[in-house]
Amino acid sequence: MTETIPPQATMKAALQAYVDRTNAGDAEGLVALFAPDAIIEDPVGSPVKHHGEFASWFADSVAFGAQITPVAPMRGSHGNAAALVLDVTFTPSGGQRLRIRSIDVCTFDAAGLITSLRAYWGPDDVEPVT
Amino acid sequence: MTETIPPQATMKAALQAYVDRTNAGDAEGLVALFAPDAIIEDPVGSPVKHHGEFASWFADSVAFGAQITPVAPMRGSHGNAAALVLDVTFTPSGGQRLRIRSIDVCTFDAAGLITSLRAYWGPDDVEPVT
Repeated sequence: MTETIPPQATMKAALQAYVDRTNAGDAEGLVALFAPDAIIEDPVGSPVKHHGEFASWFADSVAFGAQITPVAPMRGSHGNAAALVLDVTFTPSGGQRLRIRSIDVCTFDAAGLITSLRAYWGPDDVEPVT
Repeated sequence: MTETIPPQATMKAALQAYVDRTNAGDAEGLVALFAPDAIIEDPVGSPVKHHGEFASWFADSVAFGAQITPVAPMRGSHGNAAALVLDVTFTPSGGQRLRIRSIDVCTFDAAGLITSLRAYWGPDDVEPVT
């Protein structure tokens, strides 16, 4: 299995692209970071989304003006996973601007495409942006 | 399944106890935070440890003078998981003091005991303490 693990820098570059494309409002570019069989569980404990749902998911993210601020250095692993510590602000339709404190843990295929994204944030990790 | 999810505060209190007992050098207290069938994968990608190995694992941690500094607020989830963003310093036998930047993702049983701890840190997330 070890030969399928991408370099640490490849995984972290993909996470950085996830931040940059979110902040640029590039929904297509976000979808392109994921492998065809990838899943998103955001937040952990909610229903898993599959690739066919990603375009709509990221279009909403862009429409809500999502802006990510990394708040600690990314972490790699000794496997095919890496993680991003972030605050994200966004304005849901007709709502107030919110901040979510999340940890996004991703796994990757050998090409550096994201195969899973699991976002750890709970009901207590959301607050209005004041 | 939802009735088996402990409150967010219970999970975060267990993570705080993990920090406090590490910093107090309380190896027995650390083992007591885990369910009997718990596993530790630290770092992710290394062999999984089972409960019978925890006493020795945490005794080493204490012997190495491990000290944890949380570097961002803990995150919960909408499931039975919560995560801690930390730097840990320690001095392996005969070695130089090191700092590891990790994200420790834990799952919990209904009683708030840790059922899994997976520590995300890679070879690039370790540095000498200068």
